[in-house]
Formats: sequence, C-alpha cells, structure tokens
Amino acid sequence: MDAFLKECLAGIGPLDENAMAAARARQDALAKPPRSLGRLEDISIRFSGIVGGLHGAAGRRRVLIFSADNGVVAEGVASAPQSVTLAQTINFARGLTGVATLARHFHTELHVVDVGVNADFVYPGVENRKIAHGTGNIARGPAMRREQALAAIRIGIETAQKAKRDGMEIIGVGEMGIGNTTTSSAVLSSLTGLSPARTVGRGGGVSDAGFARKREIVEDAIAREKPDPGDPVDVLAKVGGFDIAAMTGAFLGAARARLPVVVDGYISAVAALCAVRLCPRTADYLFASHASCEAGYACAMETLGLSPILDLEMRLGEGSGCPIAFEVIDAALTVLREMGTFADAKIDDAYLAEIRRNARLQR
Amino acid sequence: MDAFLKECLAGIGPLDENAMAAARARQDALAKPPRSLGRLEDISIRFSGIVGGLHGAAGRRRVLIFSADNGVVAEGVASAPQSVTLAQTINFARGLTGVATLARHFHTELHVVDVGVNADFVYPGVENRKIAHGTGNIARGPAMRREQALAAIRIGIETAQKAKRDGMEIIGVGEMGIGNTTTSSAVLSSLTGLSPARTVGRGGGVSDAGFARKREIVEDAIAREKPDPGDPVDVLAKVGGFDIAAMTGAFLGAARARLPVVVDGYISAVAALCAVRLCPRTADYLFASHASCEAGYACAMETLGLSPILDLEMRLGEGSGCPIAFEVIDAALTVLREMGTFADAKIDDAYLAEIRRNARLQR
Repeated sequence: MDAFLKECLAGIGPLDENAMAAARARQDALAKPPRSLGRLEDISIRFSGIVGGLHGAAGRRRVLIFSADNGVVAEGVASAPQSVTLAQTINFARGLTGVATLARHFHTELHVVDVGVNADFVYPGVENRKIAHGTGNIARGPAMRREQALAAIRIGIETAQKAKRDGMEIIGVGEMGIGNTTTSSAVLSSLTGLSPARTVGRGGGVSDAGFARKREIVEDAIAREKPDPGDPVDVLAKVGGFDIAAMTGAFLGAARARLPVVVDGYISAVAALCAVRLCPRTADYLFASHASCEAGYACAMETLGLSPILDLEMRLGEGSGCPIAFEVIDAALTVLREMGTFADAKIDDAYLAEIRRNARLQR
Repeated sequence: MDAFLKECLAGIGPLDENAMAAARARQDALAKPPRSLGRLEDISIRFSGIVGGLHGAAGRRRVLIFSADNGVVAEGVASAPQSVTLAQTINFARGLTGVATLARHFHTELHVVDVGVNADFVYPGVENRKIAHGTGNIARGPAMRREQALAAIRIGIETAQKAKRDGMEIIGVGEMGIGNTTTSSAVLSSLTGLSPARTVGRGGGVSDAGFARKREIVEDAIAREKPDPGDPVDVLAKVGGFDIAAMTGAFLGAARARLPVVVDGYISAVAALCAVRLCPRTADYLFASHASCEAGYACAMETLGLSPILDLEMRLGEGSGCPIAFEVIDAALTVLREMGTFADAKIDDAYLAEIRRNARLQR
C-alpha cells in the first residue's frame, strides 16, 4: 500500500462520543414521545458525532461524480454504447442529466472528474484526471495495474478533501461508466464471496443473452484473476474500474476530513464497501440514500450494515439519489437544532390564563 | 348521507388520461435507461393526471392539521395526558412542534383546525371549528352522533377546498389528538375486518397494561357498537374521532378539488382509507409519505394499495412526514419538467468536433 493511502487510512478517527451524547440528550428533551422521530433522530446523532457538535447542517452540498470507461463493454454486457459515458460526462456539466437536474433544484453542486473516459476531450466543468482511456477488459485480463488503482483512489481522496476545503457540509458519491454494474458485481463477489448469481443484475436493462454473459464474465474473471478478498486494492485493480476505485477514495477522503458522505446506488455502495474494508471506521461516516433496485445493492447494504431512507426503485446511478437524500438529512438536522423542547412547549396554567386573557382582549 | 357529502363524492373525477400519456411519453424520452427513475416517474405521471398537465409543481404546500380529543383516554390507553392535545395544538401555531419545525424549513404552510379539543381557548393561527369538547368514550358508548361525524367530514372538505382556493399545489393531512391511535385501530378493524391484534399498536409508547387494555377496548367497542363496514360514516361516528372524520373529509375535498394529497402516518392512513371507502377514486389522488412503525400502518397501506417513499421509522403523527415527502414529490416533478431528453443530450460527431475546437482555442 502506498504512503498516501496509508496516511489517509491512519487519519480516519472515531466519532465524537461527547457530541453524540449531547445530541441524544437534546433529542430526548424535544417535545415528542421518546424516539418518535425514528431514523431522523439517529441521523442527527451520528451527524453530530461526525462534525463534533450539535450545530451541523447540510446546507452546502456537492455530489462528486467519477467518470470512466470499462473494457468489458466489448463483451456486450451493457445496454448502452460506450460513447454514452463521454456524452453523459459532458451532459453533467451542461446540466441535462438526472443528477444535474436534481442538483440544480436542491442547491447542490456537482464536481465531475474524468478518471478514465475513453476519449480525448476538454469541457468546462469536467476535471481531467484521466488515468487511461478506459480499463482492460476483465473478460480477458485484469482491469488495470495496481499503481493505477492506487492513483484512482488518490484522486478520490483529493476530490473529497477539496470539497471539505471548499466549505461543503455534506457530499455524495456518484459515477458514470457504461459497463460498471458488471465490474461492481465482480468487486462485490470478490470481497464478500457471494455468488455472481446474487450480485449480477440487469444494470441499465441488458438483454437476456447479455445478462447471462455478464454473470459468466464475473465468474470467469474472479476464477482467473484470483483477487485477494483481504486486499481491496488488489480487487479493484484486477476486476474493478477507475470509477469504483476513485469513489472508494472519495469515501475514505470524506471520512478522513470528517465530512458526512452519502452513498448513492449500487456502484456507490460497492465502492463504499471497498472503503470500509480498507478502514472499518469509514462506515461511521456513511449515510445510505435510496434503495436501488439493482440486484447486488441489497447484498452490499447488508454487508455494510446500512439501510436506505428512500424507497424509489431508482437505478439510474450518476449520484442521482444524493440530492434528495441531502434534503432528508437536512430535515433531521433541522429538527435537532430548531424543534422545541418539553420546557419550551409547556403550556402551564399561568400561560393558559394569559392565552385566555389575550383572547378576551382580542374580541 | 347528507347532500353536501353526496355532492362532494359525486364530483370526484377520474385522472386525466391524456395528461398521463403525455407525461409517460416525456419520461420515456428523457436521457436515461427506460424506467430507471422508478417511482419518481410514477409520481410525476400520476401528478400530471391529477392536475391535468405536465407542468405541475409542489411549490406551494400546506399541511392541514385537525386537533380533537378522545373520550377513550379515560381508560389509560395513552402515554400522554389529554392536556397535550391542547398544548400541541397551540404549539403548532407557536412553531415549536416537529411538523412546525419541518414545515418552516421546507416552506410549507400549516392550517391548524380545532374540531374538538376538550378546552375553551382562542389562539391566533388555530381555527376554531370545535364540534364538541372531545368525543364520547368508545369503551362505554359511541364516539359521537352521525350528524357530528358528517359535520367533521364537512369541515375537512371545506379546509381542503380552501387550500385549493389559496393556491396550494399539494397538501398533506395530519392530526393531534391524544388517544387517536386507539380510535384509528377501531376504525381500521371495523372497515377491514382485521383483528385488533393486528391493528392495535403502542402509539406514543403506552405501558404493557395500557396496551392490553387498548386491544380489549377496540374489540369490545366493535362488538358493542356494531359499526357497518359498508358505511364509513357509521364507523367514524361509532368508534372514530372528530380528527379522523375531518381528515377523511380533507382527503375527499382534495380529490374533489384535483389537489394532490399526501398521507402522513397511521391515523392519516386510516382516514385515507375511510375516504377511499366512501369514494374509491380518491385513491388516485393520494401519495404515501413515510412508513410509520405504528402496528396498523402497514395493514392500512396494504388495503389502500399504496407504498411509502420514505423509510424513517417515524411515529410522531402531526403530519410530520408531509413536509419531507413534498420534497421528494417535488423532485419527481422537477425531473419531468427540466431533465434533458435524448435529443437534448445527444453528443453527435459535429458537436464533439466543436467541443474539441473550443478546447484547442481555450488552451
């Protein structure tokens, strides 16, 4: 493992227990039946533990989007042509995609990073940190060299650190990369030992033949490359992608910077799992967003011990669930900061007498 | 049935099929894999059918809150004293409660209506339409007379109609009434035939003894009053409450006014079921919000054929899930209105050449 990554992992600290105890005490003092705000309470308490105080907000928000191509598309495993990765990467910056539309509406910034799109281009609003023109085809050999996986992870860490420097209070992690549900399933099966029959789904909507081939490719790639489940960098290099590796780095960088971070859909969940395997404490910094209906999502969430707050049957990717999830998390923090306590809300006999007197005066 | 209610029920029309077809066509033209936005697509299509066009928004929002007391609290079935109904009704107007806090944050108005609080008071921001000082105790006799149930339903209809006149684009329906999970379970079991063992839960957090007594009361009340499952007004009068009856009216009034309406938690779901039993078309105008963890909620939703979009384990009531749900529904409408189509998003060779030329010029 290289020094940069090692330093990052070593720097990920525990949650602030004092801040969490104070948040829990405040939740218990709010004018409501105990625990009646359910997961909004849990979210506000954990958020307090991340930022180290009760006054956290989710006002300044950014979705990090990592774009890259995957050599495996040559096998017909995707429902869209590879050129869509480039087109949508540009369309994030043009504000046309699903996540761009939702981000604009919910006051969320996008940071789009090209870590491996298979085209030479420059476009305002797309940061060029291209590692290569797409990965190798995992149906025939490894996706990338170990140094490339480490480079992608580093880009992710740095992109999360920049979000913190720029004053973001919460981030989300999304992607664009035709073929990346195939690589995600290969990574997920490698890390968990789960059969590809459970982790491989239809992605954007591949044909029956493509679906069968997809499962076969994941099985073969794992059997051939023998990724080490104890070494997520090895897994990412052998059967992953530049997008997933950079996203892994983004989760680690967020945790290192004590920045709450939202997991989007399937690919994001697999990257989050890679991050947690590299440093288990990272899990404390993660918030799930929506229950993706891609097959492997539920496996990844179960392994992470997270459960989503939104049930929208989405499977678009891009980070599209994050702007909506930010609103729910913001709701949780608003309750903690602004709702009245039992003391505030008490209507005692003296106050009631005053209300009645005022009512008579107003007549 | 009285003439006012009859006129309302007769005036509830079907969804606009042309508007829904146009919304579906636009969803299919958006730059994403087919159906990849899942329930956001469904929401936008049904919303279009309600308002009769593609340009619906959820910008102007209001939660209607009906407050009333329930005689059954004399039996020790609630975890809080009856005075909390009055206190929280005033605290809605003071902006201190959970729903008030969330409403302020999410630009949502509250309309608080006293339909039966057991106290004489006047407070700015609380409309006084008190039918009586609480209902009768359903452990001993009927909750109210049939005319009172009809009066409460009428108040609900009128309150929803006023929201439409005031320019609201979506409303939610909430309540405050200590003891109303008991009456809700009595209504739900009466309408569905489900055993109180399935519909009675712990509400705000009643003791074991109170919980057992609650179930017994619901069983006895149904056996004694024999509410007619085919006549929701009879059910509401015999074992319901002023709050549930007014909420039933609010759902009907919203459907009559073609105003999309959000179901909050358990009590709201039971009232929605009463409305749907009075006029099945009402179901087309309903949007579920969060999965309440009160026992009977899931039964009510299953009967309604709805499923919630948020999973927050909330059980506060008040309409507290509505301001959050409005945001998710607004997200769905934003995508329909603003996301780029495949035509908008196409990056053809000519455009790519232009991008490359621009990139060279910028260097």
